[in-house]
Amino acid sequence: MQEDRFRRQAARIGRRLRLGIVGGGEGSVIGGTHRFGARLDGRYDIVAGAFDIDPEKGRRFARELLIEPDRSYATYRDMIAGERDRADRVDLVSILTPNHSHFEIASAFVEAGFDILCEKPLTTATDDAVALAAKAEKSGVLVAVMYGYSGYPMIRQARAMVRAGEIGKVRAIETEYAFGNPVTMTETPGGHWRTTPGISGPSAVLGMIGTHAIHLGTHITDLTLEEIAADLTSFVPGRRLEDNAHLMLRYSGGARGAMWLSYVAAGAEQGFGIRIFGEKAGLEWHQENPNHLALLLPGQARRIITRGSAENIPEVRDGMRVATGHPEGFIEAFATIYGDVADAVTEKIAGGDPFSIEFPGIKAGVEGVRFVDAAVESNALGGQWVDARVPA
Amino acid sequence: MQEDRFRRQAARIGRRLRLGIVGGGEGSVIGGTHRFGARLDGRYDIVAGAFDIDPEKGRRFARELLIEPDRSYATYRDMIAGERDRADRVDLVSILTPNHSHFEIASAFVEAGFDILCEKPLTTATDDAVALAAKAEKSGVLVAVMYGYSGYPMIRQARAMVRAGEIGKVRAIETEYAFGNPVTMTETPGGHWRTTPGISGPSAVLGMIGTHAIHLGTHITDLTLEEIAADLTSFVPGRRLEDNAHLMLRYSGGARGAMWLSYVAAGAEQGFGIRIFGEKAGLEWHQENPNHLALLLPGQARRIITRGSAENIPEVRDGMRVATGHPEGFIEAFATIYGDVADAVTEKIAGGDPFSIEFPGIKAGVEGVRFVDAAVESNALGGQWVDARVPA
Amino acid sequence: MQEDRFRRQAARIGRRLRLGIVGGGEGSVIGGTHRFGARLDGRYDIVAGAFDIDPEKGRRFARELLIEPDRSYATYRDMIAGERDRADRVDLVSILTPNHSHFEIASAFVEAGFDILCEKPLTTATDDAVALAAKAEKSGVLVAVMYGYSGYPMIRQARAMVRAGEIGKVRAIETEYAFGNPVTMTETPGGHWRTTPGISGPSAVLGMIGTHAIHLGTHITDLTLEEIAADLTSFVPGRRLEDNAHLMLRYSGGARGAMWLSYVAAGAEQGFGIRIFGEKAGLEWHQENPNHLALLLPGQARRIITRGSAENIPEVRDGMRVATGHPEGFIEAFATIYGDVADAVTEKIAGGDPFSIEFPGIKAGVEGVRFVDAAVESNALGGQWVDARVPA
Amino acid sequence: MQEDRFRRQAARIGRRLRLGIVGGGEGSVIGGTHRFGARLDGRYDIVAGAFDIDPEKGRRFARELLIEPDRSYATYRDMIAGERDRADRVDLVSILTPNHSHFEIASAFVEAGFDILCEKPLTTATDDAVALAAKAEKSGVLVAVMYGYSGYPMIRQARAMVRAGEIGKVRAIETEYAFGNPVTMTETPGGHWRTTPGISGPSAVLGMIGTHAIHLGTHITDLTLEEIAADLTSFVPGRRLEDNAHLMLRYSGGARGAMWLSYVAAGAEQGFGIRIFGEKAGLEWHQENPNHLALLLPGQARRIITRGSAENIPEVRDGMRVATGHPEGFIEAFATIYGDVADAVTEKIAGGDPFSIEFPGIKAGVEGVRFVDAAVESNALGGQWVDARVPA
Repeated sequence: MQEDRFRRQAARIGRRLRLGIVGGGEGSVIGGTHRFGARLDGRYDIVAGAFDIDPEKGRRFARELLIEPDRSYATYRDMIAGERDRADRVDLVSILTPNHSHFEIASAFVEAGFDILCEKPLTTATDDAVALAAKAEKSGVLVAVMYGYSGYPMIRQARAMVRAGEIGKVRAIETEYAFGNPVTMTETPGGHWRTTPGISGPSAVLGMIGTHAIHLGTHITDLTLEEIAADLTSFVPGRRLEDNAHLMLRYSGGARGAMWLSYVAAGAEQGFGIRIFGEKAGLEWHQENPNHLALLLPGQARRIITRGSAENIPEVRDGMRVATGHPEGFIEAFATIYGDVADAVTEKIAGGDPFSIEFPGIKAGVEGVRFVDAAVESNALGGQWVDARVPA
Repeated sequence: MQEDRFRRQAARIGRRLRLGIVGGGEGSVIGGTHRFGARLDGRYDIVAGAFDIDPEKGRRFARELLIEPDRSYATYRDMIAGERDRADRVDLVSILTPNHSHFEIASAFVEAGFDILCEKPLTTATDDAVALAAKAEKSGVLVAVMYGYSGYPMIRQARAMVRAGEIGKVRAIETEYAFGNPVTMTETPGGHWRTTPGISGPSAVLGMIGTHAIHLGTHITDLTLEEIAADLTSFVPGRRLEDNAHLMLRYSGGARGAMWLSYVAAGAEQGFGIRIFGEKAGLEWHQENPNHLALLLPGQARRIITRGSAENIPEVRDGMRVATGHPEGFIEAFATIYGDVADAVTEKIAGGDPFSIEFPGIKAGVEGVRFVDAAVESNALGGQWVDARVPA
Repeated sequence: MQEDRFRRQAARIGRRLRLGIVGGGEGSVIGGTHRFGARLDGRYDIVAGAFDIDPEKGRRFARELLIEPDRSYATYRDMIAGERDRADRVDLVSILTPNHSHFEIASAFVEAGFDILCEKPLTTATDDAVALAAKAEKSGVLVAVMYGYSGYPMIRQARAMVRAGEIGKVRAIETEYAFGNPVTMTETPGGHWRTTPGISGPSAVLGMIGTHAIHLGTHITDLTLEEIAADLTSFVPGRRLEDNAHLMLRYSGGARGAMWLSYVAAGAEQGFGIRIFGEKAGLEWHQENPNHLALLLPGQARRIITRGSAENIPEVRDGMRVATGHPEGFIEAFATIYGDVADAVTEKIAGGDPFSIEFPGIKAGVEGVRFVDAAVESNALGGQWVDARVPA
Repeated sequence: MQEDRFRRQAARIGRRLRLGIVGGGEGSVIGGTHRFGARLDGRYDIVAGAFDIDPEKGRRFARELLIEPDRSYATYRDMIAGERDRADRVDLVSILTPNHSHFEIASAFVEAGFDILCEKPLTTATDDAVALAAKAEKSGVLVAVMYGYSGYPMIRQARAMVRAGEIGKVRAIETEYAFGNPVTMTETPGGHWRTTPGISGPSAVLGMIGTHAIHLGTHITDLTLEEIAADLTSFVPGRRLEDNAHLMLRYSGGARGAMWLSYVAAGAEQGFGIRIFGEKAGLEWHQENPNHLALLLPGQARRIITRGSAENIPEVRDGMRVATGHPEGFIEAFATIYGDVADAVTEKIAGGDPFSIEFPGIKAGVEGVRFVDAAVESNALGGQWVDARVPA
């Protein structure tokens, strides 16, 4: 239980992994989450960084993180140049910059042979995502995408239960991400970067929170998104991208679904949740109460499955950090993704096959970008059903 | 507080109202709810009935209800004939038969000058509903529609708060009715009447639960439904009508919404809930926990408003049957609708204007039927946006 | 299901039962609850009353309730005199007056041969309760005590589960009634009647809410209270009786428990709940969410049992008024007690044995009074353990 | 916000702190939690350890943690000897061994001048705790006690609200820790160490979970425990110490309380919660849902305060690791205690006063031990009220 896997894997190569980070410096919300996640299990040392578009701010930040001065880089290009030939070069690079720069930065690291972990959305256009996937395949590097919610233990429990047939053939997938914080975001004339076309991509809520939502549903059910009908709206005056999206979805195997994504859910917090109904039963999970998964059985008591109970799948029980009843949270989910990627990188270092380890990879990244583009297309066509599959 | 209104109104005319009932006999689920609702506050005596399509079963049922034999009728036509000229004729007739018969029966009573309370959907076609409205207007009778959920005190609280501007201009209305019981309903070759085209109407979930859902949202917000895009599916083998509906909605004033209606939400019970988000705040209510209404305020604590607290509107405080903290339920909501209708009928008996009293009336009934038809049309057109307004 | 039992029993004697009420008039909170409970299922007509200590106010109230003038009595003695020899005399008398008058009034009706339903606490002294029990036994009348919470379906479910051994031998019973309303009660120099020694009895919270609490725990488990250690406090300035009680309890069979009763739980509402832990499992129920009962199983998912599901005991399924998922509340629980008593009275009228029907009776009433007295004794003795059993 | 404090403090001394650990090796539940907590914020490197009573197992464990072989010690005495004179000696020693060894080990480190962080209960006898406090005062070292729950942000919020008078003078403190895991613990003839007199101390539940409970209540309210009346029971056959405790408590200022501590709450998990009622309002917190704190206001909506909202105290907002709505858990609470201690140690290294920083210290540790002893005494005296204050 608990920390055993982390200790065993670290012991296998006799050291912690070396992590480099691009972006996520002072003022970044997601930067801290990545650092907490990387540190928690003791599998990484953060040894290199290009934390800020402003080199001086980036250097100050690196200093505070106790990074050696010669590994505090002004730009991601400097990091590639500086690290490429070191004997102790970084084992993994996390890319935490705004959406529109992911493609360029990720491509550069991939071409230089670095394994990477990129924030979602992987890119801001399907073509770019597909191109990046081709580069990655060619160079053989590992490209992980930070779908952090898939690190929650009860999501893994849910997936195992669906695969085991506990809910039967899936009929309906209801997903939503009611994000309330941006409702009071002051929009400058240019807008916040989250809602600025050039930076966020062709969409706001679709890319930032919708990619999480579509990943969770397809990840748990192993279904593929096939068609989308979308109604996008921009409510806050001055916004140049949608801040609310209603979607109807059709999945492989005949399953249907709805998705609501919003930046205007006034008073909501991180209202991300999913419910999946099959022929035999339903499953319900909410990220604000992530240690529980409800199993709904017709005519029977609702079962509130808790993280780590004797009925959990071995993967969840083995991955416990604290006992059942003690809550784990968002950082632990991130840490688990970092742990999975660490296993893959360790496997590679030890001469094995990193792809024998499961982690959210480039396929899921490309699917997320395609989801965004398809929804934007449907909305532009007045809500017509649009094919949302990734081009073969 | 509490029972005062009921007692005062009864005292005003010195008697309880006389209620006749069509349908809702042995085996009917909704029949009991109506009788409980009618009896609870002591405003009605159930004195006449045509409870069953099988006259003998209907008579046995009437006998058990201690109804006088001469007011136990074989058919609704007999009830009209028998009651029409009595000095103590029924003051109100509740129509609880299957959907497809509402128009015929309601029309007959209306034409004979009886005030009625009809189950939803009012009819199974917009044209019929419009025609019935015309008849009612001509004869001057009172036509109430049993949108029972609008009798819940916290729905009235919510409506008052929206009207008072507490959540600002409405942006998003998210509604769902995840009804799990029918998922295990055995479908005979002909199907259950709930999913049989000739009887249920042109739809299953839209008419049976969707009319409640659309009523609640428009009732609370005073907005009008303008457009619908629908995706209807039939999952259970043998069903001839849809058992799942995903809808995207556009309301007057630019508000958007989604609605999910389902008979295949395995393991759900009566999962009816609504959330309304405005520029300033959000409201959330679930019928399985009806004594609470959540007010969501950006950056502030979530406020769980409870039935009857000092902050409630006077109408709710005055309508209390039991003290704050003691739960009221579905029957009490029905009783409140019966109480509102009793006030209107009492007003009429006392020579006043029954329409000065607010109750769910024929306008809301017609809108519900139009909602059903528009959704069916949109689905037939491949999910195109369809005008859902009632024809002028 | 549903209303069947009520209709069948009414049909058996061909009429509704005739109910007389003492107390519970204008301004009484509990009066309304009794009337709602008596009316809901259509088993009683309220035909007689002495509603108020002030005869004029009582008569006005009776008039509003549409009671015949000759059965609107100035005092309970008049009611006895007026009803005793009527052919259509009342079948049951509900006694809803303040605590200190229960003994006198109940004794008078019992001696006159009337069946009664008395509010709790049955009396304000153990000796009186024992004496009343003796009178009742002698006259053979039916004495029910309104332990209304025991009418909740999930309490019956819980009791059946304990009896079936589903939680094993009981070890711990944790009960509390955190009642917040009185915290802001303005205390006149004499105090509110709830906290006035002469009227409330020797205690405030013990008699008013503690009797409910001790009844629920012993009713569900079939255990007997054996010993009490108590710490009573009066917090609100001017109060002459305790408004907070902490109790430690010892039950037959070695079970232990705690109980917290309070009028100073600021901001709480009707925070009445109970948890029972046995060797194999635990049960948890809260009256503010009464349609659910949680079953806690070591190492397994928490099971939220809902009113009416297929797993429920037949008594609960047969007693359903509205479908699973539609909430029932406090009034329905009262109605069920009224229904049980109606069954017993009907049995008597039909020549059968009223005591073959289970309802909260005089034994439970006496035990409640003894609980109060024992706790007061323990507190007076500095918290010593005191024998709380009813003297043989 | 977020990680700023951690980075700034680390930057102040230009390095992470060096942590040594005694106990908590393979198979220890609490060991992992300490390591996670120490690592999360990047303030400590774990550089030395004596992890196991079996030196070989301890060394293997140290190796897996990537600790240098010369700092992997066989015993705590070896650690003192090995670290005492190193230039890079450990800055803090965490003591995670079974209860009965705390006094000996803590004394040795304190006498050798090491700052320590000791698990609760600080010792297994009040005299020992008092003696240790004297040693600590004499040597001037820092002694922290791991009352981990006091690291939860909403506990800090609660304390600030009580101090600000938001709930008024405190009247009732209701605390419980319903711990269900041990109910199925197989008791060997000698018993599990948690319930073995020599090892656990004079009590089981009192020391292991009761010390947390009494700390939380007194910490939030700034009240002192004055008197205890206790009823201890041992339910599981073969247990030699109590596995259930009911307590009545009297605090300074006239506040009263109850506490329930149990190892036999079958099916419960870590059911630790506290409710505090004052003259004006109540507060409620449960550790299984730690990101929310309920404020109960008479006659008003219940307010669910969430971690990090704009209404939170600055300390909570500044201590945010992830945004409002993203849950933090048990590890983060531990990390915050480690962070507070790190601030104190950093202050000391930088030449300042470590006691200017607030952390759970030796006073709270001594009070916890006295609480245990007083409860054991009361129970031995048949539940008499016992003075629970620490001897002056």
